[in-house]
Amino acid sequence: MHENLSETMSQDRIKATYLVETAYDLEQAAQIMAGEQSCGTFLRTPGESDSLRANHLATVDHLQKVANVAAPSLPGARSKSNGPIQQAYVTLSWPLANVGINLSSLVSTIAGNLFELAPFSGIKLLDFEVPDNYISKYPGPAFGVAGTRRLVDVYNRPIIGTIIKPSVGLTPQQSAMQTKQLVTAGLDFIKDDELQADSPHSPFEARVSQTMQVLQDYADATGRKPMYAFNISGDMDDMMGRHDFLIAQGATCLMVNLNWVGISAVVQLSRHTAIPIHGHRCGWGMFNRAPVLGMAFSAYQKIWRLAGVDHIHTNGIRNKFCEDDASVIASIKACQSDFIGQKSPMAVLSSGQWAGQAADTFSAIGNTDLMYLCGGGIVAHPAGMTAGVKSIQQAWQAATDQVPLSTYSQNHIELRQAMEFFGKLEM
Amino acid sequence: MHENLSETMSQDRIKATYLVETAYDLEQAAQIMAGEQSCGTFLRTPGESDSLRANHLATVDHLQKVANVAAPSLPGARSKSNGPIQQAYVTLSWPLANVGINLSSLVSTIAGNLFELAPFSGIKLLDFEVPDNYISKYPGPAFGVAGTRRLVDVYNRPIIGTIIKPSVGLTPQQSAMQTKQLVTAGLDFIKDDELQADSPHSPFEARVSQTMQVLQDYADATGRKPMYAFNISGDMDDMMGRHDFLIAQGATCLMVNLNWVGISAVVQLSRHTAIPIHGHRCGWGMFNRAPVLGMAFSAYQKIWRLAGVDHIHTNGIRNKFCEDDASVIASIKACQSDFIGQKSPMAVLSSGQWAGQAADTFSAIGNTDLMYLCGGGIVAHPAGMTAGVKSIQQAWQAATDQVPLSTYSQNHIELRQAMEFFGKLEM
Repeated sequence: MHENLSETMSQDRIKATYLVETAYDLEQAAQIMAGEQSCGTFLRTPGESDSLRANHLATVDHLQKVANVAAPSLPGARSKSNGPIQQAYVTLSWPLANVGINLSSLVSTIAGNLFELAPFSGIKLLDFEVPDNYISKYPGPAFGVAGTRRLVDVYNRPIIGTIIKPSVGLTPQQSAMQTKQLVTAGLDFIKDDELQADSPHSPFEARVSQTMQVLQDYADATGRKPMYAFNISGDMDDMMGRHDFLIAQGATCLMVNLNWVGISAVVQLSRHTAIPIHGHRCGWGMFNRAPVLGMAFSAYQKIWRLAGVDHIHTNGIRNKFCEDDASVIASIKACQSDFIGQKSPMAVLSSGQWAGQAADTFSAIGNTDLMYLCGGGIVAHPAGMTAGVKSIQQAWQAATDQVPLSTYSQNHIELRQAMEFFGKLEM
Repeated sequence: MHENLSETMSQDRIKATYLVETAYDLEQAAQIMAGEQSCGTFLRTPGESDSLRANHLATVDHLQKVANVAAPSLPGARSKSNGPIQQAYVTLSWPLANVGINLSSLVSTIAGNLFELAPFSGIKLLDFEVPDNYISKYPGPAFGVAGTRRLVDVYNRPIIGTIIKPSVGLTPQQSAMQTKQLVTAGLDFIKDDELQADSPHSPFEARVSQTMQVLQDYADATGRKPMYAFNISGDMDDMMGRHDFLIAQGATCLMVNLNWVGISAVVQLSRHTAIPIHGHRCGWGMFNRAPVLGMAFSAYQKIWRLAGVDHIHTNGIRNKFCEDDASVIASIKACQSDFIGQKSPMAVLSSGQWAGQAADTFSAIGNTDLMYLCGGGIVAHPAGMTAGVKSIQQAWQAATDQVPLSTYSQNHIELRQAMEFFGKLEM
């Protein structure tokens, strides 16, 4: 296999684009990045022949100054230069053959030691590309948007969901009772909180079997089985055991905390499972919140697409976290962008969502291929949960029909109640 | 099992300490963190009874103002307060029963959504503690310092090592030839670069078998087998296959890129393997380089100790990266600190190391339970590699004997040559 792949790989390249900040000459700084992340070290070593460099050195494909900055964004940079501190976009590329088709090696190459390079007072990975033949080993989401819609039987509007709350402390019986209320109210999708796993007060198997009984009863009565994403995050063997239990119980989705389970475990799950993987990004703020450090969501979601994740959290607009709307919209669009012919993962919008964000979200995204998760926006509706679900459905119908909420709500009481109640809270 | 554990867990707590930055009242801000990461959501939910809160809510155990700051460290914070922006230490604790004994859930609890909380313009996880019974599921490094020393037969001084360079591009035969030169020069330990894995120009099995033949020949001749850490990073099945191949070939160490293989995969490896795990932290800068975001190394190394990592990279003093000496020393001390009765992982010092840092490193750490990795500091020695290795051994002997280098080098020519050559470069 290596020989044939070698032939193909020699023409193929990995590309990555960064925002960098440095007091060095920009060209020199970019070459230092390229050296560190390919065949180089700080000094050229004896074995580093010209032909080896020609075959393996990363190249600087693009360099574009952005701006001067008054002070370094991060401490620790060391420079003998008295030049200005500049920010710039840098695109590097590597021969695919440097690391082969290997997801953890790919990330080590594009997001490895370079964050600690002394010439830089900031480096952020903005985006990356891999050759199309990556799909031979990493086929991407097995379900994505279409597969998830098929499982929940919801088309032409977002999949409307919620999260079991409180996050921690409910018994399996209490979780199942809450699930019953939520599906009776008309929800398509429910997920565990990322803090729920397998704990003394809520053993995984008891929670799953009692919850799945509720969902099966509902499906028997209505012909439609809502999707529940059970959090199986844990050690590999535990996750595999929990996965098999989910399948045996008729569950249609599993959830993992992506960052703290890790890439190799998620790849393994995606190869093994026959149900969608709901990817929670808890811890994500650590990767992205510094403006010139870490990685942007555009790069992050590609890593998890390669790992086979079907749903990935993006926040929603006007959320309660620190992320602004432009960033949320960019994240959702990134999930929906083409990437080596893979299916797109479904963006999961949540945090402070109610009927009020539907129109602006649709206007920005232009489709309804989303999971729209509401907590208070459903359960705190003044006329109850069923009315809460209806208000969300109505808001999305108005959005896709391009009818102003103020008009649509005249004939839709649940929406009107939501606007009166939640609209006031937003003031 | 759950019933017995439940009894114990109810008395046990997880603790985590953060540096935070907020314009909110500090007590209120800390309570928001505690709520988000335990049973709460933004609003108290109907199921969140008083007894549930009493049993599961995280508590604010300690709060200590550090300083006012003039401007927010990170963008995105939202505050209705006109108060000053303050930095403070916050210690939270959780009942162990909230998430049970589960490493990925532990990290999701102490390092989850909280980094995105809008009241904060910065949150960094500084350290954490878990109850001693965590060791029942996570016994920690199987080898650590003593087990690694036994395998390489080196005592009373650091294990002296190097990295195969160039990072990428050598054929298996070239790697093996370089290994032969390095072990003949007297090195105890060699590692793959983190960018080496399984690639068309250097297929894993060919590299391992040719390298192990060199090490076995050396062991047959000398009675001592140097340790080589082969980078097996990849998908789970690939890693397991590579691991088994290593064992079959008589290898005594495996390496993984911790961050990009991930917690669950490393736990799985540590349960499966009979050789030490060499943990490379490439990508680490992303987690730590922002002063008030991410996690400090003290917390980071505990996560990987729990996962079973035997060696972990810390940089060395006067390194070529952006990390200052105080931070390096604190990292090494963190690795050597007590943690729930586990063995300590061996700190791996590297980057710009030569004989010149031995005395200051020993003076700061007080022992030699370290891996001391030199690149140029050995191979660029003016009298050759063997002299390079000797110069490092001599520098450490001088350090542990508390003899000044200037004195010791009078009778040790390799050390004197190193001081003359590398000392000049450092000017």
